[in-house]
Amino acid sequence: MSILVIGTMAFDDIETPFGNSDHIIGGSASFISLSASYFSEINIVSIVGNDYPETEFSDFKKRKICTEGVQRVRDKKSFYWKGRYHPDMNERDTIETQLNVIEDFVPVIPQSYQSSEFVILGNIAPAAQLSVLDQLEPAQRFIVLDTMNLWINIANPGLLEVLKRVDMLVLNDSEARLLTNEYSLVKASKKIMELGPKSVIIKKGEHGALLFDKQNIFYCPALPFEEVFDPTGAGDSFVGGLVGFLSQAKSVDFDALKNAVVLGSVMASFCIQEFGTLALRNLDAQKINKRLDAFTKLSKYSISSL
Amino acid sequence: MSILVIGTMAFDDIETPFGNSDHIIGGSASFISLSASYFSEINIVSIVGNDYPETEFSDFKKRKICTEGVQRVRDKKSFYWKGRYHPDMNERDTIETQLNVIEDFVPVIPQSYQSSEFVILGNIAPAAQLSVLDQLEPAQRFIVLDTMNLWINIANPGLLEVLKRVDMLVLNDSEARLLTNEYSLVKASKKIMELGPKSVIIKKGEHGALLFDKQNIFYCPALPFEEVFDPTGAGDSFVGGLVGFLSQAKSVDFDALKNAVVLGSVMASFCIQEFGTLALRNLDAQKINKRLDAFTKLSKYSISSL
Repeated sequence: MSILVIGTMAFDDIETPFGNSDHIIGGSASFISLSASYFSEINIVSIVGNDYPETEFSDFKKRKICTEGVQRVRDKKSFYWKGRYHPDMNERDTIETQLNVIEDFVPVIPQSYQSSEFVILGNIAPAAQLSVLDQLEPAQRFIVLDTMNLWINIANPGLLEVLKRVDMLVLNDSEARLLTNEYSLVKASKKIMELGPKSVIIKKGEHGALLFDKQNIFYCPALPFEEVFDPTGAGDSFVGGLVGFLSQAKSVDFDALKNAVVLGSVMASFCIQEFGTLALRNLDAQKINKRLDAFTKLSKYSISSL
Repeated sequence: MSILVIGTMAFDDIETPFGNSDHIIGGSASFISLSASYFSEINIVSIVGNDYPETEFSDFKKRKICTEGVQRVRDKKSFYWKGRYHPDMNERDTIETQLNVIEDFVPVIPQSYQSSEFVILGNIAPAAQLSVLDQLEPAQRFIVLDTMNLWINIANPGLLEVLKRVDMLVLNDSEARLLTNEYSLVKASKKIMELGPKSVIIKKGEHGALLFDKQNIFYCPALPFEEVFDPTGAGDSFVGGLVGFLSQAKSVDFDALKNAVVLGSVMASFCIQEFGTLALRNLDAQKINKRLDAFTKLSKYSISSL
């Protein structure tokens, strides 16, 4: 099994109450791929500039993350984002965005990627996501879409087109409300499923994540922390863990989706503990299992009837 | 086993996007007692005016809710609150408050109440809560305190005095932050436990409830609804179900507390489905068990390791 991931490979510059990250590796495809690589082989489709370090490609290779589909542009720089988190770490301001190579990105999918049974359309312009779908040969695949408020606001028609063609949408609560104009997340999930996806995950940050299909609801709480060091990439790490687990489980029924949401939450819980992708680079099965135990302890209770 | 409850017995007038309740029975002691009465005998300490209906006392008697400790004032009216919920049902404005009988309330505990093994200090002025504690003869009891932002702001010294003498504090997330000046709920819970309580429950509305003691954390998600009809009294119903369950379980260890939080959440989930106390008056073990099943289904998953 392998997962095709499209998204950004970028540099981030992050300010939090705990300090500054300086220039570090970020981007949706980086977080998703590192997180999912603990479960599956990964095929990245992305674009970088002349400032992107070669060491990153060799590190990805060791992790069975294939970068054949990553375009390298010689006369431009990589996508760059600078942001500052508020003291409560729940909100952030964008200080600077340099689109650079992303501006003219036209994804090209290598033939070797056509065997991927799972596809993650990471947070990037809907036009790029559509281009990936258009290039995929017909096959049985499970396609997961991530998006953000920016695309809901400025690229709504494109986003609606992508939505028709995916199995699952992952977004946060404010994005779900923005997309559907419904405050109730139950109602919002129903409206989203009418747009195409057979299931929806609504992420609620420190409040956990809700999974919906047409018949069922599952609520996975988030592990409470004393400090959130850097929330950047937590949503991408979640999607990586989620789809990584599904590809390992070789199932997408509701029971598998529930477990996948837990594993996604586990991977996101690592991500927020260090700057950027750092925490995602130093995990192993033992650490993941230990964190999974903490999640189970957090929400397990014994009573089943009075 | 029995539970001593102090709180208000009042009239509410509630406006929601779904309509107006008109003049209905409300008050913390009413919600707590009705909720807890499905699990235990109840002894109420409260005060009402000349407008309070006699039928309410006979209904309470049928439910094994003793009102011997409820003072009836002939020349004054009952406590009255009028409020209006915002369209998202998460915020509300107070339109009118008439303290009436509550203004000069000095609780008097009947001798027959001294056998209560559980005490709920419902949301009322800390001075009245302290008076109850002062009148209790020394005995092994489990004492649970509920409070609100008003008392944190205007009666802080009294509240801190009560906190020293209780086993558990129940409050919502914004109140926990207000009381401790900590944004992180993990840090807030630690500060609260330094003030006296051995355990803390932080309610997060639609996001569920967190239970802390010095060693453990438990997170009970809330059942997602399409519509919240009237959130008034949900917190009181939670506390009633919580302590009601503990008195039935005859245990206050962490496993019992976890189950109690689930039962509290179950009772709160009924409360919000109709105006005022209406939903809490028509339950039975079968309905409660069915809702408990829905909670278990909501958060249960099977994976325990990779």
